[in-house]
Amino acid sequence: MMVFKSMYVFIALCLGMSGIASAQQAASNLPDAKASDPKALGIMQGFPPAPNLQVKFADGSMWAFPKMRWSFSHVRELGPTSNVWRGSGKATVLPKNINKTLDQVTFTSLDGQNLTWEQSLALNYTDGILVMHKGKIVYEKYFGALNERTPHIAMSMTKSFVGTLAAMLAEEGKLDTQALVTQYVPELKDTVYADATVRQVMDMTISVQYSEKYSDPKAEIWDYIRAGGSMPTPPNYSGPRSLYEFLQNLKTKDGEHGNAFAYKTPNAEVLGWIVQRASGKATAELLSERIWQKLGTEEDAYFSTDSMGTSVAGGGLNTTLRDLARVGEMFRLNGNFNGQQIVPASVVADIRRGAIKENFAKAGYTTLPGWTYRNMWWVAPAEQGVMTMRGIHGQTLWIDSKSDMVIARYASNPVAANPANDPISLPAYAAIGAHLRATSK
Amino acid sequence: MMVFKSMYVFIALCLGMSGIASAQQAASNLPDAKASDPKALGIMQGFPPAPNLQVKFADGSMWAFPKMRWSFSHVRELGPTSNVWRGSGKATVLPKNINKTLDQVTFTSLDGQNLTWEQSLALNYTDGILVMHKGKIVYEKYFGALNERTPHIAMSMTKSFVGTLAAMLAEEGKLDTQALVTQYVPELKDTVYADATVRQVMDMTISVQYSEKYSDPKAEIWDYIRAGGSMPTPPNYSGPRSLYEFLQNLKTKDGEHGNAFAYKTPNAEVLGWIVQRASGKATAELLSERIWQKLGTEEDAYFSTDSMGTSVAGGGLNTTLRDLARVGEMFRLNGNFNGQQIVPASVVADIRRGAIKENFAKAGYTTLPGWTYRNMWWVAPAEQGVMTMRGIHGQTLWIDSKSDMVIARYASNPVAANPANDPISLPAYAAIGAHLRATSK
Repeated sequence: MMVFKSMYVFIALCLGMSGIASAQQAASNLPDAKASDPKALGIMQGFPPAPNLQVKFADGSMWAFPKMRWSFSHVRELGPTSNVWRGSGKATVLPKNINKTLDQVTFTSLDGQNLTWEQSLALNYTDGILVMHKGKIVYEKYFGALNERTPHIAMSMTKSFVGTLAAMLAEEGKLDTQALVTQYVPELKDTVYADATVRQVMDMTISVQYSEKYSDPKAEIWDYIRAGGSMPTPPNYSGPRSLYEFLQNLKTKDGEHGNAFAYKTPNAEVLGWIVQRASGKATAELLSERIWQKLGTEEDAYFSTDSMGTSVAGGGLNTTLRDLARVGEMFRLNGNFNGQQIVPASVVADIRRGAIKENFAKAGYTTLPGWTYRNMWWVAPAEQGVMTMRGIHGQTLWIDSKSDMVIARYASNPVAANPANDPISLPAYAAIGAHLRATSK
Repeated sequence: MMVFKSMYVFIALCLGMSGIASAQQAASNLPDAKASDPKALGIMQGFPPAPNLQVKFADGSMWAFPKMRWSFSHVRELGPTSNVWRGSGKATVLPKNINKTLDQVTFTSLDGQNLTWEQSLALNYTDGILVMHKGKIVYEKYFGALNERTPHIAMSMTKSFVGTLAAMLAEEGKLDTQALVTQYVPELKDTVYADATVRQVMDMTISVQYSEKYSDPKAEIWDYIRAGGSMPTPPNYSGPRSLYEFLQNLKTKDGEHGNAFAYKTPNAEVLGWIVQRASGKATAELLSERIWQKLGTEEDAYFSTDSMGTSVAGGGLNTTLRDLARVGEMFRLNGNFNGQQIVPASVVADIRRGAIKENFAKAGYTTLPGWTYRNMWWVAPAEQGVMTMRGIHGQTLWIDSKSDMVIARYASNPVAANPANDPISLPAYAAIGAHLRATSK
């Protein structure tokens, strides 16, 4: 059996995450998907599990690799959560038409490897992947701790759900995207958000001194995670103990709002706060009423919550892979699914159109040329017809309208950086889309 | 608005819980059901809730009255939980035939008050109550923070579920009730359980120095609750940090096993450990497979878990009221429900027969003359035809076969003692049973 080191994600990341090569290097020093399979290793098995195979919140081991490969499918067993009720109706049927040719589809990764689809899954530490084509499941596989009925943490894909809810409220006239943030959340009047609009928050063109760099232990992302209740606090901790307390500490800009895309997770928490104030409902309840109950989901979803019960809007949602695929189908079909218009077609169209390219380009995402970020969705150039939710460690909902394809993917890549996933995932998704277009009539 | 004091249950109980009179006195000093209604008070409402209306795990306020009236219906929002999956099948229909005459049924409480059924509900701080008669819902009401789809904490009713699972495994030959506990859990060889049999654990005739007296802050119950992860630990806490660690500290007997009933919650944790070892499955998974999926429940249930993921077998289960009623119907029908034998009829019959009366009598339960405790169920004398699950703060599943009646009840009585509930509840249940017998053909 392999020796477990207290190998936190952020320590692994200290190897350097500035680009593709370093991400690959970090990954190459870690056990591969098979060697880190949580079931094969016996993580959290037995009554009690062996001491070195226990996953605990208090010692931070839930985020340590390879234990996180178990945790990501068992978040509720490690902390407080709020339920996203599926309702009492029947689940929508996702018809199956498994396509065995997909495993052998080949592609070249951005760093020059010739790979098959099947190989790509392990290289990216996939926990579950489901491909839908023209409304049918053509591929569905689970690995490690995940199965078809277990919710997995969606990480930053959560933001796209919150962005969608905000856009829906705006469409209904319940939220003014041109208004100042402080119209809904006066508590932010002494922060960088004082002169920001709701739209700037929704598209993340906020200027705030806040580092999302997981490789820096002093980066504000760690304060955020502790404030959100997802990591234990040290004995003499004096920092913020709730998300809202954390947000009120963001007082320093590093430029002006509205000019450049800057991916900062607190924006999603601000938007979650706005959405709750505008709707009068908790995020979990609103998501249940507006989307989860209407989709005909199979299982309840849930959010991680902070110490005062606030659902973590920046990354706290957990869903099954199949329900995530249903969400993708609904967006592919312009919001219409299960016999009803769930998200207004105008909201979907607004996301598809994307945001301002010049703003996005300033952020320097080399793997996403010509993309934008709109309503907290990642949107490819129009000719590609792709809109996606993206979460750290490899979480993806990939909606490729030109290929009539949706890919839902949960993963536990030990490297918390998109450069660790994109070089393989992006060309792999493109290759599957091209293959399905070429082989279907 | 009323002033909130940090009025912990156990402090309220320091008034003295030795009998009915003192329990009534403790209750009379507290706001009544209406004045402590968590919705009307605004507990955990707003984004964020007002500071004095927030319920937090870390400050212990989840167990403080009246905040606990909210917490008992929101346990998962305050700590880690394990899911009891309902499966993917249809929920069984519970037909309704509401009987409006029940509210005015009168009875005399054990302390001499003349009351109606309707009055009794508020006096006992009822959160939800459902009466079934001959398989139909004749009464269903929700108060405070509870509704028909929200799970509520079952407290010690959990023990009856674990006792049932143990009896089912015994019936299948997977668990030897005459064997020593240490055959399944050798880790208990240096504890009082070293020379105890599984049967003695199931019927709670274990001799162990352990105080369940909530009114004593030094009682071992508080160590147990902290070890189970249901209360925060003080800064310099050096006690057990898991249920299994706690159990291994129980080293002192106060008599001999097998002679007298003694209600001690750790016995349920020992039985939970045995059940997991004998079945090879986690309690939550076993309950799902054996009962929850087969009943056609409406909602998933869940357990609170300790720091290493062990479901709290002594009191951690949370279910909806309706699903609890389904469990009751299944037992009333000798284990046969939803078109299948879910619990073997022999197991139900064994519970109905009860345990040894002389052993139970030694425990001095003045409100339960002639009763016994079998497989962690409370069983009335045979002529009454009543078997019940009982939980602190007023949780009840009351199965009265002679009246073809099941009563499921969730409550948040501020006084954590049966003498606070029994003087009203026991005669109330009997009166409803008699009324239904007398008025139905």
